[in-house]
Amino acid sequence: MLQQLFSPSVLHTLDLIGIFVFAISGALLAVRKNFDVFGIAVLAEITALGGGLFRDLIIGAVPPAAFTDLGYFVTPLLAAVLVFFLHPHVERIQVAVNVFDAAGLGLFCVVGTTKAYDYGLGLTASACLGLATAVGGGVLRDVLANEVPSLLRWDRDLYAVPAIVGAAMVALCLRFDVLNPLTSTTAAVTAFVLRLLAMRFHWRAPRAWHRRSTVSEE
Amino acid sequence: MLQQLFSPSVLHTLDLIGIFVFAISGALLAVRKNFDVFGIAVLAEITALGGGLFRDLIIGAVPPAAFTDLGYFVTPLLAAVLVFFLHPHVERIQVAVNVFDAAGLGLFCVVGTTKAYDYGLGLTASACLGLATAVGGGVLRDVLANEVPSLLRWDRDLYAVPAIVGAAMVALCLRFDVLNPLTSTTAAVTAFVLRLLAMRFHWRAPRAWHRRSTVSEE
Amino acid sequence: MLQQLFSPSVLHTLDLIGIFVFAISGALLAVRKNFDVFGIAVLAEITALGGGLFRDLIIGAVPPAAFTDLGYFVTPLLAAVLVFFLHPHVERIQVAVNVFDAAGLGLFCVVGTTKAYDYGLGLTASACLGLATAVGGGVLRDVLANEVPSLLRWDRDLYAVPAIVGAAMVALCLRFDVLNPLTSTTAAVTAFVLRLLAMRFHWRAPRAWHRRSTVSEE
Repeated sequence: MLQQLFSPSVLHTLDLIGIFVFAISGALLAVRKNFDVFGIAVLAEITALGGGLFRDLIIGAVPPAAFTDLGYFVTPLLAAVLVFFLHPHVERIQVAVNVFDAAGLGLFCVVGTTKAYDYGLGLTASACLGLATAVGGGVLRDVLANEVPSLLRWDRDLYAVPAIVGAAMVALCLRFDVLNPLTSTTAAVTAFVLRLLAMRFHWRAPRAWHRRSTVSEE
Repeated sequence: MLQQLFSPSVLHTLDLIGIFVFAISGALLAVRKNFDVFGIAVLAEITALGGGLFRDLIIGAVPPAAFTDLGYFVTPLLAAVLVFFLHPHVERIQVAVNVFDAAGLGLFCVVGTTKAYDYGLGLTASACLGLATAVGGGVLRDVLANEVPSLLRWDRDLYAVPAIVGAAMVALCLRFDVLNPLTSTTAAVTAFVLRLLAMRFHWRAPRAWHRRSTVSEE
Repeated sequence: MLQQLFSPSVLHTLDLIGIFVFAISGALLAVRKNFDVFGIAVLAEITALGGGLFRDLIIGAVPPAAFTDLGYFVTPLLAAVLVFFLHPHVERIQVAVNVFDAAGLGLFCVVGTTKAYDYGLGLTASACLGLATAVGGGVLRDVLANEVPSLLRWDRDLYAVPAIVGAAMVALCLRFDVLNPLTSTTAAVTAFVLRLLAMRFHWRAPRAWHRRSTVSEE
């Protein structure tokens, strides 16, 4: 459906940019975990493509786009090469990386929700898969690096909530049949801006009520 | 096939109860790991739906039931809300939670085996998927929480064996064409009771022979 | 396609040997992690079948071969029983196990690439899935055992690169339409020998440039 809203080449370019920045975050974690060059490439690929892969398996779109479009495969490799040679510089521009990552988050929650809906899923399920598309790669990245997914930790700035808001806006637009380039862009930008604000002001989600910090296990 | 044996509404209600108690166990682990409210909801959803999701992907039932039935999505959220506000009370009634969890185990191994068989898998493969339906969510829960799956640890009371027994009973009934409400209920109750006995008497599975405890790595 | 190149029974026997040695490696890790007999069996199954399972889900070959061929299910159980009773002896012949594991690696990267291509994937995607078939089970094994996948660690001898070379050779043969028993055997043997050499001479992949070892996090 988004294919009808935007020109395919614009959408594809945006997709590749999102994949690239997600791959950067995977490659940087791999460097920090002391992985070798192959581990850096694997973690870049999985971070970039994992969310979409999960969505495509669930909706039955096999083989997934990640395996049919060569650009989806090559882009994370480019990110891995860049980080391999330039990682101190990439770390130094971490702020810029975070901004692009927020853009990827906004884009992917919109694309993921729309694609799931195109495959006949309900609105709630589509929004869930939009969220999964946006955050799934990061979860797989952390699981493979043997860390608690930063998505779930209370001491990280809000990451899922902006994606949930963006996906829910798309679902509402689909419900009232008003999804068009303007509304879908608005949804993506809303998620993007919310994520930027969350980083800027360190917004965090509450932990369970009456949580005694003394029994913290981490 | 179970749809023909039981009234659909009975089966659906049982399903939702099983999902609810599995979600409770996921949400409680999330609280113990100090996750935020969103992490609690995610872990509740994945613990409750992960086993069935895996089964549905394997048998090709896409989109999986977890994404087509709104009740399956909302029930874990209710469990997450409950644990978020009342977790000290929920922990206090841990025994009751464990009993319900055992009931979910018995139910899911029967439902999973039957559904896999309906999709044309062999008896052994169906029983394996029945087991995976019952225990898969808990494994995903522990992997996401960055812990060794309690399913695999020797220092936990038997959990998989009751599910294996229940799934094997269903497979035998299918083999001899005697699956009916009575026999499938018997299989579920057997798994349920075995799990209760395992908890009561701390039944454990043996470790490898000649295992020298001094080289324990955990 | 390989079915046309080799007699089915030869191919099936090779497959089962590869599954058996991968299962041994999973069972041995389970013993080292102090898992119970059931955990040993589960880790053996997942290590042996996980890579092929992932490939089959991606290419849409459901239900996967692992669930339709009883031999695929029983073989890892035999490996688990063997390790359960004889693990000190199995550890003592670790060199032999490593040689068989290298053979499994060579075999699976060829089989996986060919099967993916048979299902219509492109050459690059097929080679990726050949790699995933060969190394995926080991990654799942390490994730379930709550360890950093040894595939990604810089301090392990090259494991993925031999599989990449083998898979790429098969892809090239497919590209130029010269895949036959001779060339596919050559690819498998090349991967096998490269892995043996990597173990013998402790070949390792480089880490990121300018990586300061003092900030190692592991």
